[in-house]
Amino acid sequence: MAATTFTSHQTQTHFLSKLPTFSKRKTKPIFTKVRMALNDSGPSLAVVGVTGAVGQEFLSVLSDRDFPYRSIKMLASKRSAGKQLTFQDQTYTIEELREESFDGVDIALFSAGGSISKEFGPIAVKKGSIVVDNSSAFRMDQNVPLVIPEVNPEAVSGIKVKNGKGALIANPNCSTIICLMAATPLHRHAKVKRMVVSTYQAASGAGAAAMEELELQTREVLEGKPPTCNIFKQQYAFNLFSHNAPVLENGYNEEEMKLVKETRKIWNDMDVRVTATCIRVPVMRAHAESVNLQFEKPLDEDTAKEILKNAPGVVVIDERASNHFPTPLEVSNKDDVAVGRIRRDVSQDGNIGLDIFVCGDQIRKGAALNAVQIAELLL
Amino acid sequence: MAATTFTSHQTQTHFLSKLPTFSKRKTKPIFTKVRMALNDSGPSLAVVGVTGAVGQEFLSVLSDRDFPYRSIKMLASKRSAGKQLTFQDQTYTIEELREESFDGVDIALFSAGGSISKEFGPIAVKKGSIVVDNSSAFRMDQNVPLVIPEVNPEAVSGIKVKNGKGALIANPNCSTIICLMAATPLHRHAKVKRMVVSTYQAASGAGAAAMEELELQTREVLEGKPPTCNIFKQQYAFNLFSHNAPVLENGYNEEEMKLVKETRKIWNDMDVRVTATCIRVPVMRAHAESVNLQFEKPLDEDTAKEILKNAPGVVVIDERASNHFPTPLEVSNKDDVAVGRIRRDVSQDGNIGLDIFVCGDQIRKGAALNAVQIAELLL
Repeated sequence: MAATTFTSHQTQTHFLSKLPTFSKRKTKPIFTKVRMALNDSGPSLAVVGVTGAVGQEFLSVLSDRDFPYRSIKMLASKRSAGKQLTFQDQTYTIEELREESFDGVDIALFSAGGSISKEFGPIAVKKGSIVVDNSSAFRMDQNVPLVIPEVNPEAVSGIKVKNGKGALIANPNCSTIICLMAATPLHRHAKVKRMVVSTYQAASGAGAAAMEELELQTREVLEGKPPTCNIFKQQYAFNLFSHNAPVLENGYNEEEMKLVKETRKIWNDMDVRVTATCIRVPVMRAHAESVNLQFEKPLDEDTAKEILKNAPGVVVIDERASNHFPTPLEVSNKDDVAVGRIRRDVSQDGNIGLDIFVCGDQIRKGAALNAVQIAELLL
Repeated sequence: MAATTFTSHQTQTHFLSKLPTFSKRKTKPIFTKVRMALNDSGPSLAVVGVTGAVGQEFLSVLSDRDFPYRSIKMLASKRSAGKQLTFQDQTYTIEELREESFDGVDIALFSAGGSISKEFGPIAVKKGSIVVDNSSAFRMDQNVPLVIPEVNPEAVSGIKVKNGKGALIANPNCSTIICLMAATPLHRHAKVKRMVVSTYQAASGAGAAAMEELELQTREVLEGKPPTCNIFKQQYAFNLFSHNAPVLENGYNEEEMKLVKETRKIWNDMDVRVTATCIRVPVMRAHAESVNLQFEKPLDEDTAKEILKNAPGVVVIDERASNHFPTPLEVSNKDDVAVGRIRRDVSQDGNIGLDIFVCGDQIRKGAALNAVQIAELLL
């Protein structure tokens, strides 16, 4: 991604298109991929919630990364069961999610909401599947690893497909993943003491229907019509609002507390101080985050830039003269998290503060890609 | 504003309409207003840059507030000179801005960009006019008061129309005004030591043409066309980006440093620590700001809420159960700055930290209203 910049138009057309395009992104010939991915020595997979925004992206990422598999089950609710889906030149019939769905499944990628995970996750584990769950259901369960492969792969070191034992692994929340992809390399160098995060979150975090509602509302508002509010209770087009997650007793919403708590668990650092304000902005599928960092040890901005340039899964876009910094559009459909606006915080003395601005594709690294990367650790 | 909530549709229609509506907002009969405002004992006014977004809003605010005046000159560039404009049932011919324009003018409201202010501001002062300047040209000049009437009205206490002496007064930057409207009442109670601000800034900050470009781009993107990029160098529709102000040597952009420096000047507190990250979001005319505060003295969230509820020009929208908090749309075309998400910062011990979320109409309190309020102090 470092060198390529999509023209805005191309990216836009893509993210507004309703149908995911599974093999658009790479230039490799598609048959090579199919041969590499579909092979007898690979694990058997199941995708739970395959019709959702993240479910569809699971397939896209599996394809892009030539993830090996000997079979794949496409699971969804009764409503979608029976429909057909083409993936890597094979046609699959979507099956209704049931207890028996997990018979013989090695790895199950879940993204069908917390209640489905709570009900079917433990069933899948009992049947010997390793569940990589994108919901928040098990994230804070102390027996469940919460993993960003670039950050804490060691958390799943004991879990392997070849062991034949079921297990639950949680995928962190999108905002946490995107933030920590940038903050962790700096944390390793100078130890983050405190982090103040403000998010600019895309529609995709609320699912495909939310993306459609943003598009519909925008058309309506431009036509002078009242906006349709089914997913969100208020106008989203040309507006922004505090994240729609329920607000807890301490005044934070659940989305914000995920950033606070998940950071502690992923970093295995109960002392790190985090506060967050999570806001939804009328952007389609990539989140942005303004992150203010306070370190234990001094860290100058040039060193920070070098650290980030060398960090896996991170790309630095920080061209001050041309005012070119990360944007949601530029990271849409991309794997890497982009970091820019890296600068010494003028409000902190002693070179212990930095401000950074981070963008990452919410559906991809914020969800599907991270889960598939976890699955890769299991092979 | 506390009790009234525009339906989104109404507000939307308004902010997308090209022509300002000068007497729409109040229910009072228009003739009462004309009689009260246009009277011989009022000062003579000039509006410089009357065709711009802020210039138009100057007229709207003068009308809404029944600002008294005995005459008003409508000044703009040569391009607009000769065009006619109706204000409070009187027809005016727009005049080209010249040195002689200020002959006999008591108060001149400037919003035509920094270079016009630099050229014509001192001329107007020499001719005996009091200039209230919305540009950044003189804000950091130590001889020029930088004023938010609710915050530091004392800064203009010596300047009065009746003195017959010219003077320059600067209107702060929109982001600073909106932030300090909420932060100042808390600062007075517990003294702000450090403030971390992330902004969500509307198109209007870049002028009427930028608002039009956002609308045009949005239509284009929805039609699958490449977006027109005249005002901004990149796609703005369904995207966001680091504020387009030039980036300085310290890595901050000028917009961010305005927040840092203007806060110190307005609070007359050289020790207050401020850092800011300024981002443009695809919203039409109201800014939002996520503000993290660190105080010298403890301040609990209930006390903070009470302080803000009683603060002039501030309305608290903080309904946790219904997830109702300030949004740009809800404050559009409103005078008050709205504050919500008021909560103890979990990353700071000792009850010395708060997080708040602030929204304010950028054209109104962020520019025209504040300037007219300054003018009111001069009577």
